[in-house]
Amino acid sequence: MKAFVMSEVGETATIEKERPEPGPMDAILKPTEGLICTSDCHTVHGAIGEREDLTLGHEVVGVVDEVGSEVEYFEEGDRVAVGAITPDWNSVAAQDGHPSQSNEALGGWKFANVKDGTFAEYVHINDADGNLAKIPDGVTDHEAAYVADMLSTGFAGAENADIPMGGTVAVFAQGPVGLMATKGAVLQGAGRIIAVETVPERKELAREYGATDVVDFGEVDPAEEIMELTDGEGVDAAIEALGADETLQDCIKVTKPGGTVSNVGYHGEGEFRKIPRAEWGVGMAEIDIVTDLCPGGRLRIQRLLRLLDQGKVDPTKMTTHEFEFDDIQEAFEMMETKEDGMIKPLIHF
Amino acid sequence: MKAFVMSEVGETATIEKERPEPGPMDAILKPTEGLICTSDCHTVHGAIGEREDLTLGHEVVGVVDEVGSEVEYFEEGDRVAVGAITPDWNSVAAQDGHPSQSNEALGGWKFANVKDGTFAEYVHINDADGNLAKIPDGVTDHEAAYVADMLSTGFAGAENADIPMGGTVAVFAQGPVGLMATKGAVLQGAGRIIAVETVPERKELAREYGATDVVDFGEVDPAEEIMELTDGEGVDAAIEALGADETLQDCIKVTKPGGTVSNVGYHGEGEFRKIPRAEWGVGMAEIDIVTDLCPGGRLRIQRLLRLLDQGKVDPTKMTTHEFEFDDIQEAFEMMETKEDGMIKPLIHF
Amino acid sequence: MKAFVMSEVGETATIEKERPEPGPMDAILKPTEGLICTSDCHTVHGAIGEREDLTLGHEVVGVVDEVGSEVEYFEEGDRVAVGAITPDWNSVAAQDGHPSQSNEALGGWKFANVKDGTFAEYVHINDADGNLAKIPDGVTDHEAAYVADMLSTGFAGAENADIPMGGTVAVFAQGPVGLMATKGAVLQGAGRIIAVETVPERKELAREYGATDVVDFGEVDPAEEIMELTDGEGVDAAIEALGADETLQDCIKVTKPGGTVSNVGYHGEGEFRKIPRAEWGVGMAEIDIVTDLCPGGRLRIQRLLRLLDQGKVDPTKMTTHEFEFDDIQEAFEMMETKEDGMIKPLIHF
Amino acid sequence: MKAFVMSEVGETATIEKERPEPGPMDAILKPTEGLICTSDCHTVHGAIGEREDLTLGHEVVGVVDEVGSEVEYFEEGDRVAVGAITPDWNSVAAQDGHPSQSNEALGGWKFANVKDGTFAEYVHINDADGNLAKIPDGVTDHEAAYVADMLSTGFAGAENADIPMGGTVAVFAQGPVGLMATKGAVLQGAGRIIAVETVPERKELAREYGATDVVDFGEVDPAEEIMELTDGEGVDAAIEALGADETLQDCIKVTKPGGTVSNVGYHGEGEFRKIPRAEWGVGMAEIDIVTDLCPGGRLRIQRLLRLLDQGKVDPTKMTTHEFEFDDIQEAFEMMETKEDGMIKPLIHF
Repeated sequence: MKAFVMSEVGETATIEKERPEPGPMDAILKPTEGLICTSDCHTVHGAIGEREDLTLGHEVVGVVDEVGSEVEYFEEGDRVAVGAITPDWNSVAAQDGHPSQSNEALGGWKFANVKDGTFAEYVHINDADGNLAKIPDGVTDHEAAYVADMLSTGFAGAENADIPMGGTVAVFAQGPVGLMATKGAVLQGAGRIIAVETVPERKELAREYGATDVVDFGEVDPAEEIMELTDGEGVDAAIEALGADETLQDCIKVTKPGGTVSNVGYHGEGEFRKIPRAEWGVGMAEIDIVTDLCPGGRLRIQRLLRLLDQGKVDPTKMTTHEFEFDDIQEAFEMMETKEDGMIKPLIHF
Repeated sequence: MKAFVMSEVGETATIEKERPEPGPMDAILKPTEGLICTSDCHTVHGAIGEREDLTLGHEVVGVVDEVGSEVEYFEEGDRVAVGAITPDWNSVAAQDGHPSQSNEALGGWKFANVKDGTFAEYVHINDADGNLAKIPDGVTDHEAAYVADMLSTGFAGAENADIPMGGTVAVFAQGPVGLMATKGAVLQGAGRIIAVETVPERKELAREYGATDVVDFGEVDPAEEIMELTDGEGVDAAIEALGADETLQDCIKVTKPGGTVSNVGYHGEGEFRKIPRAEWGVGMAEIDIVTDLCPGGRLRIQRLLRLLDQGKVDPTKMTTHEFEFDDIQEAFEMMETKEDGMIKPLIHF
Repeated sequence: MKAFVMSEVGETATIEKERPEPGPMDAILKPTEGLICTSDCHTVHGAIGEREDLTLGHEVVGVVDEVGSEVEYFEEGDRVAVGAITPDWNSVAAQDGHPSQSNEALGGWKFANVKDGTFAEYVHINDADGNLAKIPDGVTDHEAAYVADMLSTGFAGAENADIPMGGTVAVFAQGPVGLMATKGAVLQGAGRIIAVETVPERKELAREYGATDVVDFGEVDPAEEIMELTDGEGVDAAIEALGADETLQDCIKVTKPGGTVSNVGYHGEGEFRKIPRAEWGVGMAEIDIVTDLCPGGRLRIQRLLRLLDQGKVDPTKMTTHEFEFDDIQEAFEMMETKEDGMIKPLIHF
Repeated sequence: MKAFVMSEVGETATIEKERPEPGPMDAILKPTEGLICTSDCHTVHGAIGEREDLTLGHEVVGVVDEVGSEVEYFEEGDRVAVGAITPDWNSVAAQDGHPSQSNEALGGWKFANVKDGTFAEYVHINDADGNLAKIPDGVTDHEAAYVADMLSTGFAGAENADIPMGGTVAVFAQGPVGLMATKGAVLQGAGRIIAVETVPERKELAREYGATDVVDFGEVDPAEEIMELTDGEGVDAAIEALGADETLQDCIKVTKPGGTVSNVGYHGEGEFRKIPRAEWGVGMAEIDIVTDLCPGGRLRIQRLLRLLDQGKVDPTKMTTHEFEFDDIQEAFEMMETKEDGMIKPLIHF
């Protein structure tokens, strides 16, 4: 079968691979639609170290091609979605409420990390009963591809932010995760949602997804502007959706005493993240910093699909480009530079 | 000044009263707009016992007429809203996170209970700094009148229900509190919201506020219908917005193991509420039953006003009738019977 | 192999059975020590319906005799404990934080319910990696047998009760679950713990486990007495550890507004449980009623074993009698009547 | 009256001051016993900026000397304790569940910060009903003096750490706050408590208060040692009770994915606190960092006093020295250097 791989750090290629075989709890998925994530680019650049011919990709939907002997809830032909994170559900971390950390830090992240990812003609799914979900008839494959990571991660940014009904939220960066954090804040009852972004198309989308204010960090200091917009009070919650030291610092600066900084950004570089001591209230202002790795699992995916089925969110507005799987190399290169205003490229298998 | 009172059980009248005086922490409000609540009718019928010339009403907005010597945040002329519940904020119950229970069960409920209510030319506000909130310019008095009880209670029904993002919710009864519980479920990220109601106008409003399904209890057994709609699974959360034994039982019947029953109904009659033992999983199905009395306080009211200011909810759809204060007796009588499709009558002062 | 079974409702017997075989995720345990639970008696009397030759028992420790092909963390010869509840960890209920409800209400309860229990020479363990835990060297088999149900259920009663540091708690009934709820309240920081009991040995043990007050329901009305002891204020939390209508009502009566009623009693009889409406604050006093089924799983069992290993609790004080497996019929008959002051009988295999 | 003040940065003196007068909600306290806190030393060295003749001290108990006109629950002669933090209970921050942040960051901290502290013959108490608590007969003034800050702050470190029953905890530094965090971990059900300290007397006290392991940071690298003690797994929760960059970093390093870092240390110096990026799981390991400022208020103080009254904790083991108020200068100087093994000096008024 064909697979789009990272052949080594800095190099990608489409190569032939063996079709994977399922263990007793597993399934094999035949993809129909997929999405490229900026973190795939980071991986190729060496963010998680050297890999050899590792299949890339973690956002996909498709049809079940085969199931293992112990799989109960799925069978060949089922149209299914799967989370970017596919935990080991009987691990102690999952039992502790942290399935994404199963067995080790970030241990639920298997696709394109510790096993082959989703940009291939067949994809191995560990613990199919725990990690797949059937797609309702009213949801398209295109829509469903967004639940794997963008909806799950972005919404988690808002869910963890402990947003009070009618509260105020700042969302730093309006890439696809940030945009879904903005929408997630709407779905958590936020009264005012301040989106921080400078790219015009993303600023526009932020408003469409429910931002009540947009702060352009290319024009103003965003922390100062947010303090001004809130009459010096700060926000109930700030969401970091970029993964940079400066934005994390800004989150702490704009969060009021007793508020929450919710991180969903992937912090890929640097030895430290820095907490501004004074604005953090010398460690006594009750500003909590919480983090998350994209929740996965059958239940999570079912619930996100339900929101799509009921028309509560339309993620396809973020699809700026479409490609056939044969042209994935081109899509991948555009995603590196975000040229032509690319937000998310959809891949047809 | 004029006041609309319960002169004794079963009797109402408009009488002359002394204008109240503020203590050092208090304020006097001059009402502009108010709403009648069905619980005012219950009070007149004796639900809280005998009262003599007690001014009725607890939903009001207006202008500050006078403030006590220690009041810091408000002054004469401020356009303000106030919660139906006005807690003692330094009580141990408030310190424990339950301000509505200050000093005794339901102790934050003062208007038209332990002191005169809001249907008068001047209204006494205890702890003005703790209980008033300024109305933003973008919010009308009509809109703001709804935060006192309808938004605060209805939304609390949804907030306490622990609704997962994309989860399923049933809301029993679509009076104004139930309608706001339905809207509250939208603002808590529910994926599917099943409203239970039989009055056509209320069924229609439920859909406008975000119900994805409406079950007419005049046509079907609502518990059975909800189990069918959810493929026998039940809902993540059920909200009781009526205050009856049968609906509370139905809530337990339709809530899945691990789910939550959130009560905001006022249970005015009967010695007991009955939990169906088997459907409650013999006390081991992890179905929690939680309750609330309308949250009040400056912060709560500010946040609800922010939702109005940002256009996140329009409660005025529930205003079916309008009256001058001089005609409040007529409005009150109609509210008793809900004739002419009355949902909420607005009173102009 | 020999197994002690319920041959039909009302009848028990020791019979010969086939040794069970493990599936790929399972293990076979060879018991060393076990305990009889009053719920085994209920089962024989028909509480969960008719069964034919169902092996009884759910509290056991022993040695791993065989593991399935996919089991990673355990091997033959490991000395292990197992929860009374053995969830399916990849079920949606487990993913939702309610593993004891996996697949259906109470679905994690498999031993002596939907499959053979633990009173046999060999015991089948589903999902061994998820449900077994190694016993530390410093913990005896006798001690470890208590984690399966008594510690896990009793402590859960306290953990769910949301006890504030220094708060007040009432624990209704001081059978082994209630005694461990009393100890659990100590380990949750309770300041005052009022145990309700009448049997002298149990009253004495309650004090040993940390009760600061004991109310004898044979001498006084316990609800009245608890209100008096708390100067009319009521307790922050009440724990129901019996499973009766009267005690559940008393829990509601003695819990202050804003407090929590935590149920761990098995409510085996009657169509309804009754909530006293007035004491429940007409559904608005913010008295929550929460329930639980004994938490299981590798992590839970490991943590409870750690408390034993560090000497934080000694459950063996509850062992009033010891029997060989050959004499289990006699032990079982005594457990029915609790004659000779029986609290828990230990069975040596 | 006499008052022990910071006359300017770096200088202390005992001077004459006017006895304070109560506002309508306030009280005047006549101290009987007090404690010196290391943070008093920090204040004199300029940690909170320049002050002129500011009375020092925030840990005190005594007798009510006078109450304001609106005070309901206290009267002259009552023997009372008061928190180090005395919030404005009707502030929006208090309504939001963060009374210690009332009106501004750390705004509940008034004693020896924005108003005179407790080292004087008479002490002004704002909002007496909200902030005082009567001392039970069974509790001595000496014991009660510890609730103001040491018990409240130390226990909060454990309460916020989200310690699972039987979980593992590391407590960095065993000064009086750290010792009470260790005891607090016991009272939150921790199974293993690893105390980090090097001073022999404090190591000994840590064990007395319930530490199961003591790591001497003078002998080993504490983070490495804790990872070894936990078989490379890390702890469920780490408590920072010092206020230094290195210990905060160590907390992150030893906390397992999904665990909690709970800060109660006062971070007095430096522009930043640094989060080690890799050990923080690139912002995705679900390691939360939470902070707190000593909870105050009548309810909190009552509950802590109840723990003393029931003998659940004996803080007087930390009292290494005693002084008359006339000798407070000497006590203060010793507290600066902790000479003679000083942990806490008790001041008799």
